[in-house]
Amino acid sequence: MEVKYAKRMMTEGGSEISDILALTAKPEVISFAGGLPAPELFPVQDMKKMADEVLDEVGTVALQYSSAQGFPKFRQQIADRMNAKQKTNVSADDILVTSGSQQALEFSAKIFIDEGDVILCESPTYLGALNAFNGYGPKYIEVETDEDGMNMEALEKVLQTTDRVKMIYVIPDFQNPTGRTWPLEKRKKFVELITKYKVVALEDNPYGELRYEGEFLPSLKSFDKEGYVVYLGTFSKILCPGYRLGWVCASPEILAKYIRCKEDGDLQTSTISQLEVSRYLEECDVDAHVLEIRALYKKRRDLMLKTIEEEFPEGVKWTHPEGGLFMWVTVPESINTTEMMKKCVENNVAYVPGVAFYPGRTKANNFRLNYSNMDEERIVTGIKRIADVIKNELR
Amino acid sequence: MEVKYAKRMMTEGGSEISDILALTAKPEVISFAGGLPAPELFPVQDMKKMADEVLDEVGTVALQYSSAQGFPKFRQQIADRMNAKQKTNVSADDILVTSGSQQALEFSAKIFIDEGDVILCESPTYLGALNAFNGYGPKYIEVETDEDGMNMEALEKVLQTTDRVKMIYVIPDFQNPTGRTWPLEKRKKFVELITKYKVVALEDNPYGELRYEGEFLPSLKSFDKEGYVVYLGTFSKILCPGYRLGWVCASPEILAKYIRCKEDGDLQTSTISQLEVSRYLEECDVDAHVLEIRALYKKRRDLMLKTIEEEFPEGVKWTHPEGGLFMWVTVPESINTTEMMKKCVENNVAYVPGVAFYPGRTKANNFRLNYSNMDEERIVTGIKRIADVIKNELR
Repeated sequence: MEVKYAKRMMTEGGSEISDILALTAKPEVISFAGGLPAPELFPVQDMKKMADEVLDEVGTVALQYSSAQGFPKFRQQIADRMNAKQKTNVSADDILVTSGSQQALEFSAKIFIDEGDVILCESPTYLGALNAFNGYGPKYIEVETDEDGMNMEALEKVLQTTDRVKMIYVIPDFQNPTGRTWPLEKRKKFVELITKYKVVALEDNPYGELRYEGEFLPSLKSFDKEGYVVYLGTFSKILCPGYRLGWVCASPEILAKYIRCKEDGDLQTSTISQLEVSRYLEECDVDAHVLEIRALYKKRRDLMLKTIEEEFPEGVKWTHPEGGLFMWVTVPESINTTEMMKKCVENNVAYVPGVAFYPGRTKANNFRLNYSNMDEERIVTGIKRIADVIKNELR
Repeated sequence: MEVKYAKRMMTEGGSEISDILALTAKPEVISFAGGLPAPELFPVQDMKKMADEVLDEVGTVALQYSSAQGFPKFRQQIADRMNAKQKTNVSADDILVTSGSQQALEFSAKIFIDEGDVILCESPTYLGALNAFNGYGPKYIEVETDEDGMNMEALEKVLQTTDRVKMIYVIPDFQNPTGRTWPLEKRKKFVELITKYKVVALEDNPYGELRYEGEFLPSLKSFDKEGYVVYLGTFSKILCPGYRLGWVCASPEILAKYIRCKEDGDLQTSTISQLEVSRYLEECDVDAHVLEIRALYKKRRDLMLKTIEEEFPEGVKWTHPEGGLFMWVTVPESINTTEMMKKCVENNVAYVPGVAFYPGRTKANNFRLNYSNMDEERIVTGIKRIADVIKNELR
């Protein structure tokens, strides 16, 4: 066989996520690598009740095709929740239901990126987003990023001096992979800049509701008067990922392009999933559920931070995330964390090597830790194992 | 606001499907436009039982992330069914679960098409496939198509004389929109030709199990020794569309590209949907369910054919589909069916104008009729309404 593929498929890449998932599948591995929610909190019996009600009451609707944009009532619930939690002022018409926010990331590149166009991002940034974008041939510029998020002076300089910037990708709340959060003033300044330079920004916000300390901050979208912010949300982290339900919120002209991508790409998101989760939002107390998630993840974050503090040797630094699922560890530059990962796996513990989160693959001495998916005992044991490997490396 | 999109988004198109869905939403319209299954046959109570069992027995698994390729057991069931019904010899490893076969169509263009590459297709062909492909900038060549499918002499001539043919898109069983089916010899010849010219073919087979007369024929994939056929299947027509479950079956090298598209595009298909439908295949009798569907659709096809025979005026021709969901009507060339559609909608009846199914938009005197979704009374009333409009046009 001798098959010709499109040029976009001739590159490597994309394998990191599957490698991670492969690692997490072995039960003996303590994996801080994935970004999985804690399954013990999934509202299984509630969802069973919702499934029963949906199938009893609107069964033939639930199993039929439905519209590309998504059920109006479900979109209204999403808009209401955004307005309450993200301080936006949006309506059901501004929402498209997607198959997770990963799908919205992929659509974004399809909509905005011609080969050679430039995407600006934080440094480091979410590797799944890079995978979603890469098929469309972007160039990346990593904007200098401080402890409190993207550096606005650096951003303006890049915007002033760079042609073909088509999109800026950011995660202002509890960023993946670093756990960092942008302060209020930075949010306002960012929206001011993208409006001035007329560049679309993707605000990816999967974790915003999962805050364990400090005050909730308004979304970028809440400051967006002219419509340059495209907001991506998901039910994966506040309910569960199994239904693959996310959404895009954008101004009408831009949203129309996303709806077209949806029609062309998979017609619509699962009808029955939308109806079941819509009913959950109506009949159950999702806010109470989020409180439970926050309590458990806070406990796990605190324990991971405490164990790291006690076990990691001098010269290692880590972030203190105020929410979300991840923290980011920096080891001395003598250590290559991709190499060190092999030794960790031999010791049945896993993280994601940091290099995967830099489009330029420039830094090799970081790794990402997830604290939502492992129980307390495994957090302590796993961190000790990583500490031992690091100590050995530094010897 | 002033936003720059990628070039691929600057074209029109894609609106026909949403326009169709908008029309079908009004209850007073008798719509033969969509391709919707008959909801009264959906196994609602069975699916409720499956949902209960899945959530009781593996609830936390069902609501969690899972692998990009899909559950191994579900893929094995799909492979087994293909081997039984499509006479293939494939395994679970050859299958990727997708969000409906529409997603597999979009991935196909992403995988094989650089801007300006050529896609060969039947004439007419499925408009949803054209929408899925268009984002990647293909050129289309419509291969001459006879009453029994694509003309093999014409195909070979095109293959001999055309550069950059990257993909051939065909629906050999009960084609959308015409309802035509390729005979056995044509299937063998086709696979011989694509193997000789080393061109990938997409065999899109959503309706193959829905045969109402004549003998079932083996799939193109069953003759494919070297791996040039990519087979697309779906549960939308043999079970229901609401879960958005389809699949790709391809040789390992090609399937790896589809899996990568899946990871990049939306990570994975709904975990809970896969588990519920997998359990349905195990515990319920899907073959008995397909028999019910075939009995009902045969009755509706027969009634539509009979009513057309009685009501349509001289000079109108139509196909006699041996299965599937659609028939294809050709009116005298003096009639433009897109124009005539307005009069039909005024009379509360709808079809899809034929021009949408020609990439070159070259023919204006056809339309597609669906007979699966309207009950018997509405079929008779609706066909009479269309007949009246045609008679008026010819007056």
